[in-house]
Amino acid sequence: LFVAEGLRTVEELLRSPIEVRGVLATPQLVGSPRGQALLSAIRSRKIGLLELGESDFKSVADTDSPQGMLAIAVVPPRGIIDVPRADSFRILVLDSVQDPGNVGTIIRSAAALGAAATVCLPGTVDLWNAKVVRSAMGAHFHHLCFDATWDDVEAFRRERDAVIWGADVSGEAVGSLPRPARLALVVGNEGSGLSSLSRQRADCLVSLPITASADSLNVAVAASLFLYELCR
Amino acid sequence: LFVAEGLRTVEELLRSPIEVRGVLATPQLVGSPRGQALLSAIRSRKIGLLELGESDFKSVADTDSPQGMLAIAVVPPRGIIDVPRADSFRILVLDSVQDPGNVGTIIRSAAALGAAATVCLPGTVDLWNAKVVRSAMGAHFHHLCFDATWDDVEAFRRERDAVIWGADVSGEAVGSLPRPARLALVVGNEGSGLSSLSRQRADCLVSLPITASADSLNVAVAASLFLYELCR
Repeated sequence: LFVAEGLRTVEELLRSPIEVRGVLATPQLVGSPRGQALLSAIRSRKIGLLELGESDFKSVADTDSPQGMLAIAVVPPRGIIDVPRADSFRILVLDSVQDPGNVGTIIRSAAALGAAATVCLPGTVDLWNAKVVRSAMGAHFHHLCFDATWDDVEAFRRERDAVIWGADVSGEAVGSLPRPARLALVVGNEGSGLSSLSRQRADCLVSLPITASADSLNVAVAASLFLYELCR
Repeated sequence: LFVAEGLRTVEELLRSPIEVRGVLATPQLVGSPRGQALLSAIRSRKIGLLELGESDFKSVADTDSPQGMLAIAVVPPRGIIDVPRADSFRILVLDSVQDPGNVGTIIRSAAALGAAATVCLPGTVDLWNAKVVRSAMGAHFHHLCFDATWDDVEAFRRERDAVIWGADVSGEAVGSLPRPARLALVVGNEGSGLSSLSRQRADCLVSLPITASADSLNVAVAASLFLYELCR
């Protein structure tokens, strides 16, 4: 199960096929048309609804200033075999990305920029962590994202005849390389970058053009720039 | 004054011309070569150094797991007149961007992608807030960033003959427009987007190509994609 907190996230959750087990809400929500619409959608779908006072709600919420709505839902069963067969696709692979806000932002970008899937390797923060879900603003519910191992990614590469690129500041400029039709891009940890295993398995390392004055970009920004460059 | 926390941030601070008033550090830092190098750089520059035990340090630090080093430094006096005169430049303008992590990530991207300056309009989180500084990983110290009003930006536009674009999902696709040589791009609040004042003052509104399945991108990602697109 996972927790989806906030009005927008719960709205997006209810628009998805994901099974919602129950909702916690504060009575104050009834005061806003948006809150009321959401509550009546929950009731009409016969989802269990428990009202909590503000201080009780605050004690279960993950945010400092909760919006008064939180859902418990079932992590959808998904895996690398669910990536649609296509002549051309881009997959994002997260190798030990640890900040929940970064992973959520990456999922949101991957959905918006048209990646076919986002794969979380071991060492990456839990994809269904409450803060990851909140930062993704509902993108988890329609973007194909899931956990997998390097062995799964290897099997996928062979089966789909895909190329694997690793994002690294020492890599070749992404603009100078011919674009493979079927591509998985691996991005690494905030501090230490790609793991040695990812370096070994990547067919080549690629970098973004940045000025000499700064060492690096935030990992969510870097992943988004690569997708922007590669998904067009 | 502002607080710069963490080893990397203090390292970058010491490489900049910014005046450092004093440093707090835990004795544990002596155990690592990196910490030792930093401490000896601080001593050789005759910057006041106060050693604190771990629990005292934790009580002043802004992070949950502090690295044991924190500097107090002087906010550099900077303004829109410091933007170098050039035939061509890109300036980023933040209109009520409120999350410190987003603003820090934007400063880091603006430095890395080659923006000439980042301007914070009223309503934007304090540029020198400890979390903004930490998220920017030292980019504040070499990237020209400062607070200004819309009147300052207007005067700058007239004096430098610059064009102002506003980032908005309803805007024209950024790829379809001719690129002005001297351009200021305004990005708005995380929830509500551009203010009505920014909409009025912008010469046109521009958008990024994103898929229909997602409403939007994180503001730091959007600002970075625009700069990536416009700074090349």
